[in-house]
Amino acid sequence: MSKTSPGNFFEDFRIGQVIRHATPRTVTTGDVALYTALFGARFAVQSSDAFAKAIGYPRAPIDDLLVFHIVFGKTVPDVSLNAVANLGYANCCFCLPVYPGDTLSAQSEVIGLKENSSRKTGIVYVRTTGYNQDLKPVLEYVRWVMVRKRDEAAPAPGDHVPRLPTALDAKVLGEACPAIKVSNYDPAFAGNSYKFGDYAVGEKIDHVDGVTVEEAEHMMATRLYQNTAKIHFDLFAAKQGRFGRRLIYGGHVISLARALSFNGLANAFHVAAINGGRHVAPLFAGGTVYAWSEVLAKSELPGRSDVGALRLRTVATCDRTCTDLPYKTGDEYAPAVLLDLDYWVLMPR
Amino acid sequence: MSKTSPGNFFEDFRIGQVIRHATPRTVTTGDVALYTALFGARFAVQSSDAFAKAIGYPRAPIDDLLVFHIVFGKTVPDVSLNAVANLGYANCCFCLPVYPGDTLSAQSEVIGLKENSSRKTGIVYVRTTGYNQDLKPVLEYVRWVMVRKRDEAAPAPGDHVPRLPTALDAKVLGEACPAIKVSNYDPAFAGNSYKFGDYAVGEKIDHVDGVTVEEAEHMMATRLYQNTAKIHFDLFAAKQGRFGRRLIYGGHVISLARALSFNGLANAFHVAAINGGRHVAPLFAGGTVYAWSEVLAKSELPGRSDVGALRLRTVATCDRTCTDLPYKTGDEYAPAVLLDLDYWVLMPR
Amino acid sequence: MSKTSPGNFFEDFRIGQVIRHATPRTVTTGDVALYTALFGARFAVQSSDAFAKAIGYPRAPIDDLLVFHIVFGKTVPDVSLNAVANLGYANCCFCLPVYPGDTLSAQSEVIGLKENSSRKTGIVYVRTTGYNQDLKPVLEYVRWVMVRKRDEAAPAPGDHVPRLPTALDAKVLGEACPAIKVSNYDPAFAGNSYKFGDYAVGEKIDHVDGVTVEEAEHMMATRLYQNTAKIHFDLFAAKQGRFGRRLIYGGHVISLARALSFNGLANAFHVAAINGGRHVAPLFAGGTVYAWSEVLAKSELPGRSDVGALRLRTVATCDRTCTDLPYKTGDEYAPAVLLDLDYWVLMPR
Repeated sequence: MSKTSPGNFFEDFRIGQVIRHATPRTVTTGDVALYTALFGARFAVQSSDAFAKAIGYPRAPIDDLLVFHIVFGKTVPDVSLNAVANLGYANCCFCLPVYPGDTLSAQSEVIGLKENSSRKTGIVYVRTTGYNQDLKPVLEYVRWVMVRKRDEAAPAPGDHVPRLPTALDAKVLGEACPAIKVSNYDPAFAGNSYKFGDYAVGEKIDHVDGVTVEEAEHMMATRLYQNTAKIHFDLFAAKQGRFGRRLIYGGHVISLARALSFNGLANAFHVAAINGGRHVAPLFAGGTVYAWSEVLAKSELPGRSDVGALRLRTVATCDRTCTDLPYKTGDEYAPAVLLDLDYWVLMPR
Repeated sequence: MSKTSPGNFFEDFRIGQVIRHATPRTVTTGDVALYTALFGARFAVQSSDAFAKAIGYPRAPIDDLLVFHIVFGKTVPDVSLNAVANLGYANCCFCLPVYPGDTLSAQSEVIGLKENSSRKTGIVYVRTTGYNQDLKPVLEYVRWVMVRKRDEAAPAPGDHVPRLPTALDAKVLGEACPAIKVSNYDPAFAGNSYKFGDYAVGEKIDHVDGVTVEEAEHMMATRLYQNTAKIHFDLFAAKQGRFGRRLIYGGHVISLARALSFNGLANAFHVAAINGGRHVAPLFAGGTVYAWSEVLAKSELPGRSDVGALRLRTVATCDRTCTDLPYKTGDEYAPAVLLDLDYWVLMPR
Repeated sequence: MSKTSPGNFFEDFRIGQVIRHATPRTVTTGDVALYTALFGARFAVQSSDAFAKAIGYPRAPIDDLLVFHIVFGKTVPDVSLNAVANLGYANCCFCLPVYPGDTLSAQSEVIGLKENSSRKTGIVYVRTTGYNQDLKPVLEYVRWVMVRKRDEAAPAPGDHVPRLPTALDAKVLGEACPAIKVSNYDPAFAGNSYKFGDYAVGEKIDHVDGVTVEEAEHMMATRLYQNTAKIHFDLFAAKQGRFGRRLIYGGHVISLARALSFNGLANAFHVAAINGGRHVAPLFAGGTVYAWSEVLAKSELPGRSDVGALRLRTVATCDRTCTDLPYKTGDEYAPAVLLDLDYWVLMPR
């Protein structure tokens, strides 16, 4: 019998099944440096121990999206090695800050299964939790992927589509954010002086800058997360495939868009939750990514006067600047759109 | 009103204006590893805690040029986002060693302004200081850039050209270098046995080796410094520009030349000051960089018998070896020359 | 006299000569992050402090091959700068674990010299030892390289070919592996449940996955090890050479193959020794590497019931999947084969 893992096929999953994923991973300042080199993030809290300490953190926390990518990466060999498409995620909540030296591990529960009418594939819904070394959850999210069947004749292993919220309620936000000493929050160091109260629902911000992606960059990023999805790494196989080239991990676009959003959202120092995300089109090396954001909602946090939450939609595009805020007409996305991300950020009040 | 920063235009500056720059940045061993991977520096003091401790440092200090690039990067969004050209720097002095864990921040004072005769641009002179977390200066330098005006009709915001020294006086050198126990300085580990006394004014050294630069490398380096200058990152915009491609950050060439200079200057373990530098021509990905150096002067340091200072000119070229020491004829640089750098290094005596 | 090192030529070596190499190098979690980003290794012991501690390490050790590459890199300026070909290595034994913060240095003894019949080149055999900051050996290996003569007329500096073992004896294995608490070794976190007893001599495993290499990646890796071999870095010179392009450091292929071997050998957490290795063909950027392994032998370790040793042959190929386990016919390697590596790994029993 082969000792090589072929990954799970649709008929291998069961509702309620719990999968503990390999490989646990200690996150370090080495990862932080690489993440900075790959995305150029400039949020002061994650960049500076001194800034973070002044406002109430014990030290600079790990970037929220780096935590997300590492946890996500662990699920790939078990959940999506035989995936046809990564369909979406929802209900992603950061519940504890992560610091250099913490060890992340991941576990997923299968919460939904739905065979497609072709009987060749099915949709698998998993709720994944990332843990630290004390086995405390640091992150939770649901994602759903379309997975191939090994044997088309196999019976569907279940038939249940979970109900998922459109957006997280503001009262669960902020668990991964300690009490912030707003008086110590230095706007010159943070990059601008616009705080929670300065943003209005409906406001739209073009983040102006663009960044081109190289093959070496997205592969280094994706390996840093120990994500093993073949399509990102194997040009020889990709040449025979649908696109003829390597596909960039969708999370790469999310991190690029977040880094670009600093220009206009410098004080949105913490991603508290991701309500939902859609990878509208694939990105390939050589493409230049731009982004713009809209404030979808604002919310105070129960019992907290230090920070407030903005619900943002950030749209990323490829080889098209965002001065005219390209999005969609009806259900049809504008041609250059790569990403449609709906998430909550926290800002000092 | 837009929350996106458009950067400052020439008429936005004032003589005496002080700008505190975002984003403070904790430097770590992660940055050191990336810097090694990008430039391949081999100076023993910065590479080895054991070597550094033996000669009198508490641990291996951060490479001087990495400190320079990080401080420089912070100034870009405020000083040179609308720059047409980075004209030069002078009077750069390292005044305190930086160690992993230190947090760097930067502040600039406008010390000169001179409108160009076209009235479309002007030259801005700033003195930038880099600080550590104790607010002690670690680095100071002057640079001048040609910056666009937002409105050609706007009056010149000032008219003053500062007087800058051609070279720093040797008596200000060495502040960032602790007392060195020369008897513990191991020449085999350091890479060669030529010390201060072995170099003669006028001596010229071809550093022999060459290194080719890739797009992913210079972009990762420049993002590591949180430098946001569009021209290094945005291929889509660059295609419409003067060069049709991304321009490599001039500091990248300085770091490459310094790393190459190890072959012949292995004991020049500390850059104490940069007298001046000129980026003679732009470098693009795919080019191979070579370098050679000339000893311009030698100086003892007042009150110190451990180390002496060499004033060097290092010239870097593109796609041309330096066996014949290409430089300039009259005021005309040889075609392949990229960089003309004048600086002081310290060596054990 | 030139202060630039031209490297040693064949006639510069003497039997018994001892060379202490520059530059000592402190290994950090920054190096670990880069190594992960470059190769995507997923072995739990090296990835997670928590996992490593649970089974008996003080913290996650540095990947064995990263230690090898760093020690190897130091020898290049003295041993192989004028090499025509890196012919092989043997008798490589890891004798102490290395942890972040340790400082590595290297020393080589010339143990063999054999002039070639052309009298233009000769073969140099060196035994290299890597040390930590306490001057304890962490690694030892023999390699032999074909080195040019400076002067063809020079007499051969020696004539002795050392006898080298085909494989290390199992009783010297395991020195770099502390006593493992097997009951704490978590197979779900480690990636699969096949342990020492589950592998049979003669068993062959296709590692399935492939990974494409970019110029920026192999250059960053090779500089990370401070390896200065010109052929990896200098496109301008390489264009006039035999291949017309940069050659990828052979050790890069070893690390890629080792990372790929996780799929099927997840519990082979430690490379205890390398019996021998042959770089069958050069790899260039753009190539996609695949690998397969055969279990050549199995051995218990004297006095240890925690771990056992598998002797593996891992074969790496370029642009050819390994489903049909390509190797060689007689002495002739299959066209796509890059690497033929014979080594011992340890696995929990």
